[in-house]
Amino acid sequence: MVTSLRHFEQKKYGPTASCRVAIVGFGTVGRAVASLLLARDEEHTLELTHICNRRVASKIAEWIPTGVMWTEDVEEVLASDVDVIIELLGGLEPAHDWVRRALHSHKSVVTANKQLMAHFGSELLELAWDNEQYLGFEACVAAGVPVVSGLRDGLAGDRLIRVCGILNGTCNYILTKIEQQRTSFADALREAQQAGFAEADPTDDIDGLDAAAKLVILARAGLNIELRPVQVTCRSIKDVAFFDFEYAHELGCTIRQVSIAEVEQGRAYAVVEPAIVRKSSSLAGVSGSQNLIVSTGEFGGETVFSGHGAGGNPTAVAVLSDLLKAVRHRSTGLATPHRPTADSCEVTSDLETRQYVRFIVRDRPGIIAAVAGVFSRYHINLDAVLQKPGYSKSELPFVITLEPCHESRIEEALAETREFDFLVKPPLRMPILQQEDSYASAL
Amino acid sequence: MVTSLRHFEQKKYGPTASCRVAIVGFGTVGRAVASLLLARDEEHTLELTHICNRRVASKIAEWIPTGVMWTEDVEEVLASDVDVIIELLGGLEPAHDWVRRALHSHKSVVTANKQLMAHFGSELLELAWDNEQYLGFEACVAAGVPVVSGLRDGLAGDRLIRVCGILNGTCNYILTKIEQQRTSFADALREAQQAGFAEADPTDDIDGLDAAAKLVILARAGLNIELRPVQVTCRSIKDVAFFDFEYAHELGCTIRQVSIAEVEQGRAYAVVEPAIVRKSSSLAGVSGSQNLIVSTGEFGGETVFSGHGAGGNPTAVAVLSDLLKAVRHRSTGLATPHRPTADSCEVTSDLETRQYVRFIVRDRPGIIAAVAGVFSRYHINLDAVLQKPGYSKSELPFVITLEPCHESRIEEALAETREFDFLVKPPLRMPILQQEDSYASAL
Repeated sequence: MVTSLRHFEQKKYGPTASCRVAIVGFGTVGRAVASLLLARDEEHTLELTHICNRRVASKIAEWIPTGVMWTEDVEEVLASDVDVIIELLGGLEPAHDWVRRALHSHKSVVTANKQLMAHFGSELLELAWDNEQYLGFEACVAAGVPVVSGLRDGLAGDRLIRVCGILNGTCNYILTKIEQQRTSFADALREAQQAGFAEADPTDDIDGLDAAAKLVILARAGLNIELRPVQVTCRSIKDVAFFDFEYAHELGCTIRQVSIAEVEQGRAYAVVEPAIVRKSSSLAGVSGSQNLIVSTGEFGGETVFSGHGAGGNPTAVAVLSDLLKAVRHRSTGLATPHRPTADSCEVTSDLETRQYVRFIVRDRPGIIAAVAGVFSRYHINLDAVLQKPGYSKSELPFVITLEPCHESRIEEALAETREFDFLVKPPLRMPILQQEDSYASAL
Repeated sequence: MVTSLRHFEQKKYGPTASCRVAIVGFGTVGRAVASLLLARDEEHTLELTHICNRRVASKIAEWIPTGVMWTEDVEEVLASDVDVIIELLGGLEPAHDWVRRALHSHKSVVTANKQLMAHFGSELLELAWDNEQYLGFEACVAAGVPVVSGLRDGLAGDRLIRVCGILNGTCNYILTKIEQQRTSFADALREAQQAGFAEADPTDDIDGLDAAAKLVILARAGLNIELRPVQVTCRSIKDVAFFDFEYAHELGCTIRQVSIAEVEQGRAYAVVEPAIVRKSSSLAGVSGSQNLIVSTGEFGGETVFSGHGAGGNPTAVAVLSDLLKAVRHRSTGLATPHRPTADSCEVTSDLETRQYVRFIVRDRPGIIAAVAGVFSRYHINLDAVLQKPGYSKSELPFVITLEPCHESRIEEALAETREFDFLVKPPLRMPILQQEDSYASAL
């Protein structure tokens, strides 16, 4: 019953020549890719020929076939006759340079490098197209979940208007820890680091830059727009406290780091931020380091993709699936179907949504009146004032929810409230997602 | 910003010749396909040339361009120079004959016909391969959710061992109605029929035949096995009553029509049946007519796909996405990559799972002892006996849950309990899904 990969490929696409594969970057994912490639390829349709890494002597593993060349020098790989290079370096350089040179020398590339594809995806896809090579990058977003091809090809018949999701497992892990263990952000982060779910320097995850790169890739695949990573507004989750979850629960909600890109009539909205989401929504149901993406199409409505968002094996599945597509494209002479088609567009961050604003104050009479007075002057309607008992008077958190209004106006009002001497910290503002998994109003 | 389809196709795949398309079967889905095709193809890369239907005069719509030929005679379509035929007839014949002839005459085919692909998928995919045509059938399962290509291509790098899901929106609608409105099966069915969610003859949905066809298609795409539809064990949802939900809730569970195919070492298990699922599982979270599919891979773990499982527009999205793939395959000369690769295999239905068994009895002393005695003789361990108060003594439902044991042995024991004169109805047995979305033990 268990069909070997060669049998599979032969039956599916006719006999294929052996495809020579190099792995550049041999860390956790690289080892998982090599292991999966060997496990899934009993008859050597895919031939692992090179493994390239710094200080490669320390990397050599005895389960790798003896014929594989271990090297520290990428030039050896680029000058060789490998057909596909699997790029698992991470970071922009030298990955960018090496991938360009690989494509120029008529090698296909499969990459798990989200920053590379977010920053240089258009250029590299164009280059792959010009050189008739395949460039696969499914592993860049949500590891093994086939959401890039799902949006780009599987939903090609629709006109997608929104992609929304939980794209960073580290943030989701930390936020669910704060919620479940009633702990502080700092303690939850420390726990995530100890459990291997956060890096020593977690800035890229916490501040949203990791999710922003993935969002750029999804927006290109699904919305056909070309965002620059800096165009994605990022707000950190570091100011979210346990009492924010208590107030969110009062609203029937919880808090998630949400990434969203919307497009309408040539204008886009793209943001990564902590947001208030309904407990019954699919976003709220995502636990631990899972990822979930909801696309909204003008014709087909909402489609959900979810699964493991990280880890060696799930990422290796995406890499190997791309590798099989690369083999198919090479054997049939078909150029990559992924030539960039996305257009740049105007990006706004001034959406009209309901808002949650949390203040921490030294309590005294007149605070609510003072804050409400500011919102009133900016013609912002209050929806509710929430003040739970049991907090210290010297560091009292309370929450005001606001009816939909433009973010720019709220920011102006909040700038004015920052002058109040009763404030212990700057206020924390989060959008309240109105419908299932989506923002209140379009652009 | 909104890129026309022609622009899109040209940028993506180079200039493409106009592709001539015929729609055969012009009901709800046919109209949605035509409408979407016209809306998404402002510059006529896709040229709708024929619409074929019985009594076609009654079908003519003025929003269809005047150049389109309306016909009752499929021979006109088959003899024409159309490039792709969209088959939306449903049913086995004449669809089977027509699709075969279309492929033989070197036309690609896109179909939404699940029974056709379940019964004759292998043959037709082989035929498409031999004739270098594309055969798309994404619309057969879960409408617009790209799960067929997701399993077959997106997760090709994994070794999938299980596909599990909610594949029939009608059953899900009825079961959620029974649960939420505390109503009977008959009333919930009537309501579903009035709301357009169930057909006048709902047998195929209720008894699981519709879901079984979809499961055969998913098993072929994901598990690489060739099941015949009759090999899928189907149990009807018609005996599920409101009190079953009350007892399921006692267990922290609810009831869903679940379709599952598992494979291990050449043996498969395939069943469509009402099952007890944990309330916190993703299966339980599926509401109304949504569909959800969970695949389990040996390497990548669980991946979830969900969205609208029916309806004109979501189905049309899948058809148009397939049509775009057909165009791409034609313009590049690539034969269909979907040549059947699946192997037939031994199918078992004798899985070892926990079980929920519900009896309805005329109450009298000694009933539980009598039933427990039978299970004991078959060496089946009882897990719990649930008897909620408030039911009529003359028609009293109670539930026994059983520790994991082989279904064949439970069936033997239940056959013996059917002899008891206190039984008002035959007992209803449902498996209790143990882990998240999966059965207790492998094969």
